[in-house]
Amino acid sequence: MGSSEEPIIKRQEKRNMKESSEKKEVTLDEVFCPRGVAVVGVSASKLAFAELVVHALKGAGFPAIYPVNPKYREVLELPCYPSVTAIPGVVDHVVVNIPAESVLKLLDECAEKGVRSVHFFTAGFGESGYQERADLEKEMLVKARAGGFRIIGPNCVGLYVPKSRVLNHFDDPLEPGPIGFISQSGGHAQNIPHYSRTRGLRFSKVVSYGNGLDVNESELLDYFAEDPETEIIAAYIEGVKDGPRFLAALENAASRKPVVIYKGGRTEAGRRAAHGHTASLTSSVAIFDALCRQVKAIPVDDLDEMIDVLTAFRFMRPLPREGGVALVGAGGGPSVLAGDGMEKEGLRLPGFSVEVQEELKKVLPVPGSIFINPLDTPNLATAGAVSVAMQVLGRVPEIDLLVYHLGFHPISRWGSGRLSTEDFLKPVISAMKETMRENGKPVVLALRPPQDLDGMKEFLAVQEAFVEAEFPVFHSMRKLARSVARVIEWKRTSSSDG
Amino acid sequence: MGSSEEPIIKRQEKRNMKESSEKKEVTLDEVFCPRGVAVVGVSASKLAFAELVVHALKGAGFPAIYPVNPKYREVLELPCYPSVTAIPGVVDHVVVNIPAESVLKLLDECAEKGVRSVHFFTAGFGESGYQERADLEKEMLVKARAGGFRIIGPNCVGLYVPKSRVLNHFDDPLEPGPIGFISQSGGHAQNIPHYSRTRGLRFSKVVSYGNGLDVNESELLDYFAEDPETEIIAAYIEGVKDGPRFLAALENAASRKPVVIYKGGRTEAGRRAAHGHTASLTSSVAIFDALCRQVKAIPVDDLDEMIDVLTAFRFMRPLPREGGVALVGAGGGPSVLAGDGMEKEGLRLPGFSVEVQEELKKVLPVPGSIFINPLDTPNLATAGAVSVAMQVLGRVPEIDLLVYHLGFHPISRWGSGRLSTEDFLKPVISAMKETMRENGKPVVLALRPPQDLDGMKEFLAVQEAFVEAEFPVFHSMRKLARSVARVIEWKRTSSSDG
Repeated sequence: MGSSEEPIIKRQEKRNMKESSEKKEVTLDEVFCPRGVAVVGVSASKLAFAELVVHALKGAGFPAIYPVNPKYREVLELPCYPSVTAIPGVVDHVVVNIPAESVLKLLDECAEKGVRSVHFFTAGFGESGYQERADLEKEMLVKARAGGFRIIGPNCVGLYVPKSRVLNHFDDPLEPGPIGFISQSGGHAQNIPHYSRTRGLRFSKVVSYGNGLDVNESELLDYFAEDPETEIIAAYIEGVKDGPRFLAALENAASRKPVVIYKGGRTEAGRRAAHGHTASLTSSVAIFDALCRQVKAIPVDDLDEMIDVLTAFRFMRPLPREGGVALVGAGGGPSVLAGDGMEKEGLRLPGFSVEVQEELKKVLPVPGSIFINPLDTPNLATAGAVSVAMQVLGRVPEIDLLVYHLGFHPISRWGSGRLSTEDFLKPVISAMKETMRENGKPVVLALRPPQDLDGMKEFLAVQEAFVEAEFPVFHSMRKLARSVARVIEWKRTSSSDG
Repeated sequence: MGSSEEPIIKRQEKRNMKESSEKKEVTLDEVFCPRGVAVVGVSASKLAFAELVVHALKGAGFPAIYPVNPKYREVLELPCYPSVTAIPGVVDHVVVNIPAESVLKLLDECAEKGVRSVHFFTAGFGESGYQERADLEKEMLVKARAGGFRIIGPNCVGLYVPKSRVLNHFDDPLEPGPIGFISQSGGHAQNIPHYSRTRGLRFSKVVSYGNGLDVNESELLDYFAEDPETEIIAAYIEGVKDGPRFLAALENAASRKPVVIYKGGRTEAGRRAAHGHTASLTSSVAIFDALCRQVKAIPVDDLDEMIDVLTAFRFMRPLPREGGVALVGAGGGPSVLAGDGMEKEGLRLPGFSVEVQEELKKVLPVPGSIFINPLDTPNLATAGAVSVAMQVLGRVPEIDLLVYHLGFHPISRWGSGRLSTEDFLKPVISAMKETMRENGKPVVLALRPPQDLDGMKEFLAVQEAFVEAEFPVFHSMRKLARSVARVIEWKRTSSSDG
């Protein structure tokens, strides 16, 4: 796995890949860096997907956006062109939202214009169940091969590449990050970046590939395995068209980087929906998950868990190989529950020696604390006390990681103050960073979201402070425990030392 | 189980209960309706538990609050008394936060004053591990028996009885509801009402009983089993002191009402924390859960699940006996995930007949919808269309309940409008109520909370509208599915027809 061997592996893989035929001149790297984007089928009178893309590209400051619709002269304050060929500037990428009936003519125009890639938001192809639409897909692919361009979709939201300012939603962050996400579903391609945003997750590229007519899950896995901008790979896949090809790609990717994967259509109802959704023939989830484990990929049970596991991989520094946890937080009941949550997932809470207990008693309030593991000490024990306690626990050899849990019940806003004050959070965060650095043990946070708007404001501020300092934050102890356990399992079995 | 038999059962039970000796003249009903409350150990200079209680009682408009501390003349703008006996008015309930060393003298005063109950927030008794403190508890009990009053605790937050305006936290709602909650932990006694508040759950009585020196889990179960104000019982229990007695109480309660129960200290770490927390000797969780199931109680895996299962019991009308679900919502990917979530928990999504599909096509947008089960149709298909669709599905014989899922991704605020508008929600809610009434099938909601403050505002408004209309709302499809499945299982096996 030394970097000197990579070119050889790359050559071997290329020989093994049927899709990577000689005709493919456009690389995915080129697809991900378009110089100009045309958006075909935009409307000046409604606000749907095509308009959303124009709006998002404008908001991101993408320099060359070309709305296309013969009916209009202007859309969202940009000049609108009657056809792709009528656009004066360079067009590398085309976003399409026109009826399936009109796509072949459009593809001819795209070939004439010399574009690199065409993304079809348009649905109603293979997944519709009509033979003529499946045939249409084949014709589209022939035109793409002949025209030397790639097709993304149909039936998807396409690309989100922050570095290139290519977005499909105004909410997409512009900062790039180390996660590459492959999603057969457009909804999930937009949901995962949104729901993981406040947890600090950022993406190198997100590709929603829908029916996978041309660019598909296997090629994307190969790409992300090699991509130097991607350190962790996430995938939402409903079904694969070429099982052995996919498995080879998954094994290759998982041997290099953590690959966190959800197989949609895990049940009869899910499968029915998946077939209607992206024309996928899905297979048994048990077989799929077993195959994932065999190749060291990390199957998850739903997309919330995907975000949690990605958070653990992204921010635990270092990734622990053992599961000895010191648990610190406020409240007897919550500590019991927290301890339960940890051990249910196979983590251990080693007892503290008398010496450690004595050290803790020197700094923490003796009435109001319980000096065992889980260590129960008030939310707002002074920042100094919490800091010293974290450092004491960080030095205990049986402890592999430290977990600090905080509740946001309104009672935390009573009396002794607010968690979000500079006085408390800043020194505690510094002490936690110090603990991580000194002892090489990650500190992990469980912040329980409140249900009221006032509480939510405080919660979001506290979460932001921890996330900015690059701590992994989870929203329940069980989610934390489960995700940490998955990382430890991966770390133990993975050949990677990364 | 007819009401005419109840007095006999009550008498028999009384004979079986060692705790209910002849000396206990004060009933729990009396404890729950105090005319005056003294709060001993309040401070004029700090803000901790005793002050929180005074503040909460004041906010609730409780008419007779008596702070007690010889050091002060006034606390939180109320006259402060040097001792309980110095209080001029009637005192039925005493809340205590003074060091353990001083409690015996206080109990003598309470006897002299003729109080009904004394609640010790004070910790540091049996749970501290010191023999002299365990002995002290015994002396306290002797004094209570002799003085003819009850003890709540020690080491707990005591009572929350909205009907009586007895609160222990300023956030406790003043509206009562049909859930009785017994909690060995004070933190959870405050957390459950808070975190379930926006879901519409309200409580008849919440009793945090801590070490359970006098009033304990078994007596409280007996009470709630009989209490006409309580329809559903929830319990957080770390350990029981008299197993057979507890099991009899649990069996009796569960034969009359749903009893949702979490056993804290399920694991080694949890048990260690539970012992430090409330001096409980906890037992194997597998045995405990098996016993629960045997007597038809409903064990849950954590307190979030407790809130979810309570929500299902409280608001599903009627409680379904079978698990045929029609799933309606927006997005291909989310529909796949939703279908997966349902069937994982043993619910079924029957396919729709051609006739049903044709009926749906008449009202829903044909491009943009997928007419299978799960039915994928835009978030903001017009309210009229959603309404008709719900009614069509409500009439399908294989369907036992309807589930509608809504996301709060910022994309829902793009273009076609906002969910929280009168235009959409009001007619949809009416149609759902109509469907429930016409077909006797519950409608259940999955609303996925967003992670940003703007989204949260919209989410809370939409949730409030559904909760006000008394719909069960869940925050993920898996949670919904799991809770509904628990209710169906209970309904099938329970002898109750309620």
